[in-house]
Amino acid sequence: MAGLHLPLCRTNLIRSSSSPAPSAYTRPPVVTRNLSYWDSINSDIETHLKKAIPIRDPVTVYEPMHYLTFAPPKTTASALCVASCEAVGGNREDAIVAASAIHLMHATIYTHDHLVVTDGSRPESETKITHRFGSNVELLTGDGIMPFGFELLARSTGSSSEKILKVIVEITRAVGARGMVAGEDDVIHPDRQLHGCGAACGAILGGGSEEEIERLKRFGVYVEKIQGLLSEKSKDEGAKMELAEKWRALALKELEYFDRKKVEQISTIVGV
Amino acid sequence: MAGLHLPLCRTNLIRSSSSPAPSAYTRPPVVTRNLSYWDSINSDIETHLKKAIPIRDPVTVYEPMHYLTFAPPKTTASALCVASCEAVGGNREDAIVAASAIHLMHATIYTHDHLVVTDGSRPESETKITHRFGSNVELLTGDGIMPFGFELLARSTGSSSEKILKVIVEITRAVGARGMVAGEDDVIHPDRQLHGCGAACGAILGGGSEEEIERLKRFGVYVEKIQGLLSEKSKDEGAKMELAEKWRALALKELEYFDRKKVEQISTIVGV
Repeated sequence: MAGLHLPLCRTNLIRSSSSPAPSAYTRPPVVTRNLSYWDSINSDIETHLKKAIPIRDPVTVYEPMHYLTFAPPKTTASALCVASCEAVGGNREDAIVAASAIHLMHATIYTHDHLVVTDGSRPESETKITHRFGSNVELLTGDGIMPFGFELLARSTGSSSEKILKVIVEITRAVGARGMVAGEDDVIHPDRQLHGCGAACGAILGGGSEEEIERLKRFGVYVEKIQGLLSEKSKDEGAKMELAEKWRALALKELEYFDRKKVEQISTIVGV
Repeated sequence: MAGLHLPLCRTNLIRSSSSPAPSAYTRPPVVTRNLSYWDSINSDIETHLKKAIPIRDPVTVYEPMHYLTFAPPKTTASALCVASCEAVGGNREDAIVAASAIHLMHATIYTHDHLVVTDGSRPESETKITHRFGSNVELLTGDGIMPFGFELLARSTGSSSEKILKVIVEITRAVGARGMVAGEDDVIHPDRQLHGCGAACGAILGGGSEEEIERLKRFGVYVEKIQGLLSEKSKDEGAKMELAEKWRALALKELEYFDRKKVEQISTIVGV
């Protein structure tokens, strides 16, 4: 996932999100270090997922699942889950399965959001993607990827059953909510809820207190709001960036509750 | 659900499944009693689901979810979950949430299987259904209904966390498997795995032994195979019915392990 997945940093907040990334020469050392942190998390998640979904016989079965799992652009929600676990003092491996499950939810959402729907009930997607498979396979494989994420969690043994069930509730609410607003939402918002969910899941698995879980969840919600805002076109770019800065400040305020050292790395997702 | 949901009885096995049901006059008393048993289970599941998914504001959100949950024809997999729980000596209420979750999986499968896919990648469904909503809402609401089923389970408190996680694994495997075979299956088989899963979940929640769980699961798989066979058209109806009878005998053989009194009612799903 390295390279595909850039955390939001101050540079991204000041520039338009579609601007080219700053060159290595102009990038301040602190950002380089932060990128390594997020990249190392993504690498661990990808390794876990590739073990969980090998390409094996029958290839006609596993190839679509493998492809549709890894084809979507990466979501920061998965990495935030791991970072959140570490921020409350947990071990990375405690959150890898949940982070992988969140990626699988994202993969289903992305696949189904880009499914060709021709009855006029969906605004045409601005993002044109290559469809390697027909709609039937994309629909049904997406339906298989989502429960596979829950299976990974339900089969995991690193955390207590109670924690795993809490995490499942967080994820089902985030993913379910997307379906629930389908009726009144005329624009597709992939991952609308996944960042708050990811942060909460990581904090739960890392053994965070209720207060820590809630604060990291709100932090994740701001991350998501900022990402959503920056990905949208706006007639008033100045006002947009002002709002992003406001949310960024509110996001960082949630982290003030924590020991500064513990949350230093997680805070870089909104720029420091 | 009463009336919509007829268990397979000997009459159904002997007749073509599309033949009219026998009149009350010719139906033997034993079948009437069995129907009451299955109907009472279905009624309890429906009551639970209606409480879980009320129609409330915003109606634009809850109406599609409510409609798409209750519109599909009922599956016997949910009722089998409850019957299986009772067969191993468990209480009905222990299995109602899992049975409801299985119904929600079935509702997503049914909704997505009947989604209009126009790129030629799916054989046209023989069953024409009324689409109250556009494909976009059907797709996304289906995606919301499935995780809602897992949420109900993960939030339930009647059974131990370990049992709930086992049940989630059973369900994810049944539902996920359907996605996994999407690539090589050119015919849609709703609920292909749900009956074996339902029977296993009920046995787990009812406190059954590993042996009881496995036997009831195999019983459920036969129930599904028989239902699938009877719903398909065949050029050789005689051979079809012979095969159904063979599977029925194998299904009943799985029940021989149990105390006859305990499994009397569950066996009526394949006719006694």
